[in-house]
Amino acid sequence: MTTLGDLIEFQEISELKARYVRALDTQDWDLMEVCLAENAIAWFNGGKFTRHGRQAIVQFLREVITPGFVGSHIAVHPELTLTGANTAKGIWRMQEIAYFTEPSPALADMHIVGGEEMRGAGYYHEEYLKEDGSWKLSSIGVVRIFQIIERKPARADIELTVEPARGMRR
Amino acid sequence: MTTLGDLIEFQEISELKARYVRALDTQDWDLMEVCLAENAIAWFNGGKFTRHGRQAIVQFLREVITPGFVGSHIAVHPELTLTGANTAKGIWRMQEIAYFTEPSPALADMHIVGGEEMRGAGYYHEEYLKEDGSWKLSSIGVVRIFQIIERKPARADIELTVEPARGMRR
Amino acid sequence: MTTLGDLIEFQEISELKARYVRALDTQDWDLMEVCLAENAIAWFNGGKFTRHGRQAIVQFLREVITPGFVGSHIAVHPELTLTGANTAKGIWRMQEIAYFTEPSPALADMHIVGGEEMRGAGYYHEEYLKEDGSWKLSSIGVVRIFQIIERKPARADIELTVEPARGMRR
Repeated sequence: MTTLGDLIEFQEISELKARYVRALDTQDWDLMEVCLAENAIAWFNGGKFTRHGRQAIVQFLREVITPGFVGSHIAVHPELTLTGANTAKGIWRMQEIAYFTEPSPALADMHIVGGEEMRGAGYYHEEYLKEDGSWKLSSIGVVRIFQIIERKPARADIELTVEPARGMRR
Repeated sequence: MTTLGDLIEFQEISELKARYVRALDTQDWDLMEVCLAENAIAWFNGGKFTRHGRQAIVQFLREVITPGFVGSHIAVHPELTLTGANTAKGIWRMQEIAYFTEPSPALADMHIVGGEEMRGAGYYHEEYLKEDGSWKLSSIGVVRIFQIIERKPARADIELTVEPARGMRR
Repeated sequence: MTTLGDLIEFQEISELKARYVRALDTQDWDLMEVCLAENAIAWFNGGKFTRHGRQAIVQFLREVITPGFVGSHIAVHPELTLTGANTAKGIWRMQEIAYFTEPSPALADMHIVGGEEMRGAGYYHEEYLKEDGSWKLSSIGVVRIFQIIERKPARADIELTVEPARGMRR
């Protein structure tokens, strides 16, 4: 039932998702803006952090993903469906690993004082809108399977090296 | 040498694999049944756990992947080949992470008493059968590269949060 | 803007990348040779380890990825571009996990004495060349987002099992 036309759209949506996680983990907020539709909705952590509109979402991400947040998010196993001429939806398995090198006021209830490691897995639940020939995220949410926080006393003898360019070529 | 027809079959097999890992980690056994051909064969852990037939495989998975098994399996890097009009085979790199929140009698020789973390990587070795237009797993095996078990004394200062919906929207 | 022809090339480049990581983690150096163009350039660790030519690259990898290096590298989120009739370039998010079961003289400045765990994430930056109908890596580099080394004292109560076949069927 899959058509060749579907494959092209799925490829372009996958490239959008690649840019999204690159924006997140290289902390490239200009790139993040290009990934989001103007009226996008985000509901992270199962809806605990909900934001409406591209600017509010980027502002929220900047508060959480600070320079002291050193992480890698990946999204695999897409299950995508075209829902109209310019709309699509889908889910992706998410896995994240992050190290905190300083306190994180934005994640107050996680009590991040610096030195913690966080790992998690779950699903991205997303909707997409094609505008002027480019797919954008119109809705993005995350529901986790699990999240684990490992705190400092158990993390002796651990050396973390952070590349300032975060994976990009200078 | 790859044809457009190949791309469509590879896409549909990739979607099957996405449903398989979703069934596994959300513990959705009805979905797992739909992923397996009726006469499927499974040989997990390099053949230590071999089961014949869809029902026996699902029964085995239910015994191992209990509510106290909190995990995320991902399969990436497919190397797929069509072997006939309705058959295919392939390998995928597997990575798994799991936390045990209670004892696991089914994994007796791993001595899981609760509190352990398991991580592993390896390859899925698979065969596929297309029935009534849908790809199913007709054979699935795993050979690991490594498996690591980290037990409780080393896992102080660790907080695990499990989402009851395991990544799905309620 | 993506064409069906692009999809076929992207599929074949993705299969090349799958073979590359399989060669790396199963330590199959014959397979690695087939992945590399004769005049390939490699610059690992942001350029610290630079090698010119297929033979020098394979030689370097054999020195680092010894039997005591037990690892899994994955590459996801490709962002690929065709740059000519037989050339392409792209980036992939890299994630690695490795255990050292013995000292590693080749990684002298990491002070690997055996018992360490290394995890990292970053980006592969690659160029490709199509020769006789097959894509090869003509340039491969890695810039990390982070790298973490966890040393032995913190790694008590940990059991590592290595499969001699490293994921392959014997």
